Amino acid sequence: MGLEGLLFPKSVALIGASPKEGKLGNVLFRNMSSFPGRFYPVNPKYREIEGVKCYPNVSALPEVPDMAVVIIPADPALAVVEECGRVGIRNVVVITAGFKEAGPEGAVRERRLVEIARRYGINVLGPNCFGLISTEAGLNATFAVRGALPGNIAFLSQSGAFCTSVLDWAWEEKLGFSHFVSLGNKAVLNEAHFLRPFAEDPDTKVIVAYLEGIADGGAFIRIAREVVKTTPIVVLKAGRTEAGARAVSSHTGTLAGSDAAYEAAFRKCGVIRARNVEELFDYAYALAKQPIPRGRRVGVMTNAGGAGVMASDAVEEHGLELARFDEGTARALGEFLPPAANIYNPVDVLGDARLDRYKKALDLVIDDPNVDMVVALSAPAPLIPFPELARAVSEAMRRSGKPLTVSFMAGDLGEEAEEVLRAAGIPSYFDPSRAVRALSVLHRYAEVKAREWEEPRELSVDRERVRAVLERALAMGKSQLGVEAMEVLSAYGIPVAPWGLARTPDEAAEIAAKLGGPVVLKLVSPDLVHKTEVGGVVLDVPAEAAGERAEAMLVRAAYRFPRARIEGVLVQKQLPPGREVILGSVRDPQFGPLAMVGLGGIFVEVLRDVVFGVAPLSPGEAREMVESIRGYALLRGVRGEPGVRVEAVAEALERVSHLVHDFPEIVELDVNPLLAYPDRVVAVDLRITLSRGER
Amino acid sequence: MGLEGLLFPKSVALIGASPKEGKLGNVLFRNMSSFPGRFYPVNPKYREIEGVKCYPNVSALPEVPDMAVVIIPADPALAVVEECGRVGIRNVVVITAGFKEAGPEGAVRERRLVEIARRYGINVLGPNCFGLISTEAGLNATFAVRGALPGNIAFLSQSGAFCTSVLDWAWEEKLGFSHFVSLGNKAVLNEAHFLRPFAEDPDTKVIVAYLEGIADGGAFIRIAREVVKTTPIVVLKAGRTEAGARAVSSHTGTLAGSDAAYEAAFRKCGVIRARNVEELFDYAYALAKQPIPRGRRVGVMTNAGGAGVMASDAVEEHGLELARFDEGTARALGEFLPPAANIYNPVDVLGDARLDRYKKALDLVIDDPNVDMVVALSAPAPLIPFPELARAVSEAMRRSGKPLTVSFMAGDLGEEAEEVLRAAGIPSYFDPSRAVRALSVLHRYAEVKAREWEEPRELSVDRERVRAVLERALAMGKSQLGVEAMEVLSAYGIPVAPWGLARTPDEAAEIAAKLGGPVVLKLVSPDLVHKTEVGGVVLDVPAEAAGERAEAMLVRAAYRFPRARIEGVLVQKQLPPGREVILGSVRDPQFGPLAMVGLGGIFVEVLRDVVFGVAPLSPGEAREMVESIRGYALLRGVRGEPGVRVEAVAEALERVSHLVHDFPEIVELDVNPLLAYPDRVVAVDLRITLSRGER
Repeated sequence: MGLEGLLFPKSVALIGASPKEGKLGNVLFRNMSSFPGRFYPVNPKYREIEGVKCYPNVSALPEVPDMAVVIIPADPALAVVEECGRVGIRNVVVITAGFKEAGPEGAVRERRLVEIARRYGINVLGPNCFGLISTEAGLNATFAVRGALPGNIAFLSQSGAFCTSVLDWAWEEKLGFSHFVSLGNKAVLNEAHFLRPFAEDPDTKVIVAYLEGIADGGAFIRIAREVVKTTPIVVLKAGRTEAGARAVSSHTGTLAGSDAAYEAAFRKCGVIRARNVEELFDYAYALAKQPIPRGRRVGVMTNAGGAGVMASDAVEEHGLELARFDEGTARALGEFLPPAANIYNPVDVLGDARLDRYKKALDLVIDDPNVDMVVALSAPAPLIPFPELARAVSEAMRRSGKPLTVSFMAGDLGEEAEEVLRAAGIPSYFDPSRAVRALSVLHRYAEVKAREWEEPRELSVDRERVRAVLERALAMGKSQLGVEAMEVLSAYGIPVAPWGLARTPDEAAEIAAKLGGPVVLKLVSPDLVHKTEVGGVVLDVPAEAAGERAEAMLVRAAYRFPRARIEGVLVQKQLPPGREVILGSVRDPQFGPLAMVGLGGIFVEVLRDVVFGVAPLSPGEAREMVESIRGYALLRGVRGEPGVRVEAVAEALERVSHLVHDFPEIVELDVNPLLAYPDRVVAVDLRITLSRGER
Repeated sequence: MGLEGLLFPKSVALIGASPKEGKLGNVLFRNMSSFPGRFYPVNPKYREIEGVKCYPNVSALPEVPDMAVVIIPADPALAVVEECGRVGIRNVVVITAGFKEAGPEGAVRERRLVEIARRYGINVLGPNCFGLISTEAGLNATFAVRGALPGNIAFLSQSGAFCTSVLDWAWEEKLGFSHFVSLGNKAVLNEAHFLRPFAEDPDTKVIVAYLEGIADGGAFIRIAREVVKTTPIVVLKAGRTEAGARAVSSHTGTLAGSDAAYEAAFRKCGVIRARNVEELFDYAYALAKQPIPRGRRVGVMTNAGGAGVMASDAVEEHGLELARFDEGTARALGEFLPPAANIYNPVDVLGDARLDRYKKALDLVIDDPNVDMVVALSAPAPLIPFPELARAVSEAMRRSGKPLTVSFMAGDLGEEAEEVLRAAGIPSYFDPSRAVRALSVLHRYAEVKAREWEEPRELSVDRERVRAVLERALAMGKSQLGVEAMEVLSAYGIPVAPWGLARTPDEAAEIAAKLGGPVVLKLVSPDLVHKTEVGGVVLDVPAEAAGERAEAMLVRAAYRFPRARIEGVLVQKQLPPGREVILGSVRDPQFGPLAMVGLGGIFVEVLRDVVFGVAPLSPGEAREMVESIRGYALLRGVRGEPGVRVEAVAEALERVSHLVHDFPEIVELDVNPLLAYPDRVVAVDLRITLSRGER
């Protein structure tokens, strides 16, 4: 069901309205009474509040309002929400606390709330939230006295206190919002539900969220990918350092920090991540107000050398590029700038410049075809009043349609200059590097917008065979599948080293003869994990010696570990040395299975050089992940050594991602190593951890 | 000569004082006339200016002033500075432009200025500078109308425009300075000259500098190391991305970015680097006002969950640690905080807390023996007025002597709260992560302060032998020494693979027999660089085959490269495989020779995993550099593989750093590889680039 009634209501009720000053019911009443639509206070104790007719209950209202706000205590709130449902109110904001956040009793209450919402199809925002503001609808349904200024930023917050902070601060900064939503406990509505309605709202230019978690990772990714095509999303995901409470039994598991899933998810759907509050709002403002650049090339305008140097440093630090001007630009600049001025980027018109010199140079720079955006800098210059400079840069921006940010390095630009910059939507900071950072987010979004979104392929795989292997293992009570589960990889089209499982020495000899050449023998036992250390792995065994060596291995194991279950010996064709790659997967509680790729051996153990992605991966995503490994050049080939078939590595990763996506009972997986050669890849060792049923 | 007369003058002259409003000579006159000492305007055109007696020239002054400020045009300025010298003025600030920055003619003028300064022993500040301010002396010798507020920050800037920006902004922010110095062209006085006088000034608590280069790297490092023991130094070094114009002929050279020398130099002397203007002044303020913590453990106080989460993220991001409270603290907190409050770090006293609850918890937290510093957070809370909270945190800080920063997340704390925080010297930011970052610089300085400074050792080395090798090479006109220069390493106590240079096949056979075992043969020719590619390297040659193989090599080379000079064949003992390390050196124009260490092979080529240090290195510095390689664990041993003798690697690095320091004619050097074993290291290949004479 849509959220129009919540975000653009025409009629609203306040359940728990109060005439008593200082009570929340009164603060809300006063905030909501300026609502230009129809407003119905509800409270059985009063016939009217401050001159407004008050209704005893929602059943008594003259119409079914689009939305109701509930601020009565938690216990009676449930009955009231149910009554809302009965009369047909489809949007309810439960500000009331005392639910999941308040211990076991509250959690029970919250489950009942969810049940009521389901039964009646009610969009419940909260409970335990700060309410919401829609400046477009003229509604302030929060207890913030000043509300929000109108603007183009839609804001979502999981923290109510942060809402009060942001509103208070935004008022001082004159930062405006289209919508301002406190998510509270997210019992029914969560962040994902708001993305599309915000994107469809023509007054919203950017969606900004403070989140401590994501309720439904799959839905969030699916919706966000769509939304970012038209509307940028910036998220401050707090709680990066909370170590995940996930039990870890695989190599991949130990490499996946609590944050790896969020990184992977945001990358997958093109959400821009802010590391702190300053970035969150700097990014939001730039994205709400500025055009999107065509490329990463920055023109730097200054009347002070130092500022230009600092801005140039920041250009590189933030992944942008100093523009190389068209020949004509430098020539034209040279014609009127004094000899000591710099006519190349950064253009320094010198401290004695008057406005006309600065303006003429700026126009040339911003019109240069090799310039995608401009940062305009100025030290306090007696000959250039800031209001005039502000007007000049605003005009240049408007005329050129290119993004522009400024750093006028002064303590106080004056109200007039501030006003001009604000009206033009130009981000302005004392620190030049902050002005450049604001440009960089525009470029980041341009890349997101330009991205070709590719769906995962239909792969031809043998699901039935995998299902059979997993079911057999689960039936036997196994939670760890070792190298014997190579069948699973084969079924998903990932080449594995030729192998056979020998129960007896004779079988080992037979398999070795069939495989030909030297073989590797590996003891198969669910009870012995570190096989190398107990002599359970022998390399480079000639085929004719395989029977004898397998027997020795079995005898030794039976003697040393009389209680271990020994299932036999894995006989594997010995492969030539290749580049070691590790593929893996862990299951994230919020985003489901993640697939991982890295260089094996010391690279993963010492440098932790691995990348995670949310499964299933498209071919392009898999390829990008492989290319983003720090040691990627090793796969391409260095020092005259031949490279490996990178496409084959990427495809193996893609196939692993499909496997773990298709079989939720696989909770962790390591392919270590996958040997990569110039012409192919081959999986040599595999471990799968199963859980019973889906998680 | 000391700078007392410049930084704490009792009498000053202004040469070029003017009564004409709007002229710089008048702005300076007005700024300087509030100087409480004796002030002498000088200008032959006037008998008095605005009621102050004016002198025709400095010879006519009633006393020799401590300092003179020159603002007359560049050409006559030289004569005037000379006159200053003649009458005995020892400190002259040349604000006048038109010197080095203004092209070749100006450069000549600047050389003459330097000559005059040398002749008379004058401390010249500038030319082409913004002047200086000493709030302690009550002197504003700049053309900034408002000057600076008194404070504990000594500021140095290479950019005059940045001076005006900072002064303007600092006035708004109420940030105070003890000294404010514009360095200009640094013709005579540079940044290094000011460090010690600032450190010796009891009113200066922190030295802050904006630099685009360092004039005398050696002096800067030497003095800064001393100074940081008592006074922190924070530097914003701009121009990080300017690619150095250095010609590069070695591997090490290609790895040394233009910034590697500054990184190494600042690390060597304990200078804290700021990446941008915001960091520069955030760090300056914290260091000027706050005590130094004993450790890295942060206590987080909040009344809003989200703020606490964001602060905790920042604690980890900035290399600090969330304190684990003493048992007694959590118990005491549990006794009075409501059940829903968090009594572990971060302590959340909840949004309904009144001041007494917040204060009581804060006192327990800050007094906890496991807490080294505190960040105090608050959302706008109706029950806690900010001025009262500001007083509470100020008291807690003063009483405990522990650092404390705040983030009261509101738009406007009000003048009273701001005033209380300012008076207590408490950094206060909207963004919690910025408040934590301010704490982190205090910890960084605590580490600098605690560092044991160790001088380079006296090593027993054979300088004469190296000198002989280098002189011979230079006499022969060689600028590249290849593997034949292994003698140089031997002389500096770095083990090299046993070797001999054979001019004939017979000699090769002889040397191989003497070395025993398999040998490596390498063609020696100054004209063939990539020897492997032209078949000039043969591995694993049995001793008895050495003569024959050497002959084949010489014949083939003579045939294929008839014009190349062939000096013979290097016969080297073939070594067992070991861990490949690369040692190297490049010469930086500002800091002299840098020494480099990294893991060889793919690590250096793909991952560029190397570290630079300024030579000569102390044993501890060399050890720290080796330990800071990303792949250091490989040297220590991983996956059951034995490690190598890290001490031997560090010592080889130390010895290389002495070598390049002792012989300035070595401009670049690569030891690649140095093979490292569990018990020793051996250099296998070496390349040295020489320049004639010192650079």
